[in-house]
Amino acid sequence: MSEWLSDIVGPGFAQSIQVETILYEGRSAFQHIQVAISPMFGRMLILDHAVQTTEVDEFIYHEMLAHPALVSHPHPRRVLVIGGGDGGTLEEVLKHAVEHVTLVEIDRDVVEVSRALLPSICGRAFDDGRVRLLIDDGIAFVRRTHEKFDVILVDSTDPKGPGVALFSEAFYAACGRVLTDEGMVVAQSGSYIFQRELTKLVREHLRSLFPLAMTYWAAIPAYPGVLWSFTCGSKRHDPRALPPEQIAGRLKSVSTRYYQPHMHPMAFTLPPLIDG
Amino acid sequence: MSEWLSDIVGPGFAQSIQVETILYEGRSAFQHIQVAISPMFGRMLILDHAVQTTEVDEFIYHEMLAHPALVSHPHPRRVLVIGGGDGGTLEEVLKHAVEHVTLVEIDRDVVEVSRALLPSICGRAFDDGRVRLLIDDGIAFVRRTHEKFDVILVDSTDPKGPGVALFSEAFYAACGRVLTDEGMVVAQSGSYIFQRELTKLVREHLRSLFPLAMTYWAAIPAYPGVLWSFTCGSKRHDPRALPPEQIAGRLKSVSTRYYQPHMHPMAFTLPPLIDG
Repeated sequence: MSEWLSDIVGPGFAQSIQVETILYEGRSAFQHIQVAISPMFGRMLILDHAVQTTEVDEFIYHEMLAHPALVSHPHPRRVLVIGGGDGGTLEEVLKHAVEHVTLVEIDRDVVEVSRALLPSICGRAFDDGRVRLLIDDGIAFVRRTHEKFDVILVDSTDPKGPGVALFSEAFYAACGRVLTDEGMVVAQSGSYIFQRELTKLVREHLRSLFPLAMTYWAAIPAYPGVLWSFTCGSKRHDPRALPPEQIAGRLKSVSTRYYQPHMHPMAFTLPPLIDG
Repeated sequence: MSEWLSDIVGPGFAQSIQVETILYEGRSAFQHIQVAISPMFGRMLILDHAVQTTEVDEFIYHEMLAHPALVSHPHPRRVLVIGGGDGGTLEEVLKHAVEHVTLVEIDRDVVEVSRALLPSICGRAFDDGRVRLLIDDGIAFVRRTHEKFDVILVDSTDPKGPGVALFSEAFYAACGRVLTDEGMVVAQSGSYIFQRELTKLVREHLRSLFPLAMTYWAAIPAYPGVLWSFTCGSKRHDPRALPPEQIAGRLKSVSTRYYQPHMHPMAFTLPPLIDG
């Protein structure tokens, strides 16, 4: 079989990806889940009919969600990932000398389907002894936990379905409370072209809560508009002021493909697009 | 009326732009020409059913085709534009203190339709006293002219229809012959994601003919894959080695929106995408 997965991503603007084979299709307690094969992007995880990650370009999204903060923080020991049930972010975090990673994913089926059908994305990350996997509501977790974390990575879907509350100011405020005094939070904040209002909203929330807040970008071919945004809130350390030698030094023992030392300053330089 | 203009731009990957109103439709001696209105991009010039330029984001493409070379050349006096019948590149060139610009467009209808229906793209560029407009085959022109130019800008369509020969090594060699000893040529060289082979081909042609050849990029929302490539061949001056103060100095009297001084080094830093 062959069909096209179409998504109207902007006013009168659509992106369509051909799906050749569906390897899995099911409905969890939270969302519709598919794993399908595309000619261009290989295996793709699709939640509620929106492509979340693909075998071919997942490394860009996951590297760029994880490494800029982990390299900017002088000694990230305890990391919290909210969402990210496909394990791709987890795999990137574990490349650093962290002591502990908690991953809180609301949907067990996403983890199980990813482990079974997307091994090239999660690798053996879930088997790592430093990892604690919690099947739980990430918002509830940050509200009630007494633990502290150095870095929080918010690896959410679009703000619909189970992902909505992960874009709220209340959630980011709760993140601030569980971060150490040097802590940093990074959230994926939507298409830099088609979700400008979302990016702005996340940045405004984080600006109201953290001394430092800034958006950075990466080029992710499977995502609408290619240019994707991430927004960081930080209590002390400014990723934009990171000396090049610190980036290079920290990446010596971390294998990356997209996030190379020269890409760090470039990511924090935003192209002046349509609305300036 | 409302319909969608769909383009399969990669293996199993399509981009579609809604067209609300068609302002012009006709067939010239060379191609099918439309001017249509899209909800997201405003008026668009469409040649052989492919979007060439749009009111909303044309400034990015035209600035990035014209300015990097014009700023890198120490004193560009005589400029040649091949193609570019919509006048957008011409308008950018005229922002510099150039003495003379020749624009060679093969299709008179493109110029006439653009002047009539896309005034926000060409402005009053065609009325500027420094401009000579030739309706002619650009390849034939560079082969037979005895004039010399400081900068050549190749503002072509995709390599199909009248645009094919503008991607040939023979054409670039002819460009080399009409350039001064300090001359530079820049060609649009396709989608950085979906036309990698085309970009590589242009770069290889220019590398075989010029001491310096390099690709740079810009983010253009209406174009497939957003990241668009331009490739430059240069006899002496290296845009990558341009001191920041020269860029800022030259742009003091040139009004731009996307090509700002800090975007110059960023453009020459290529993101490591799918194929590394």
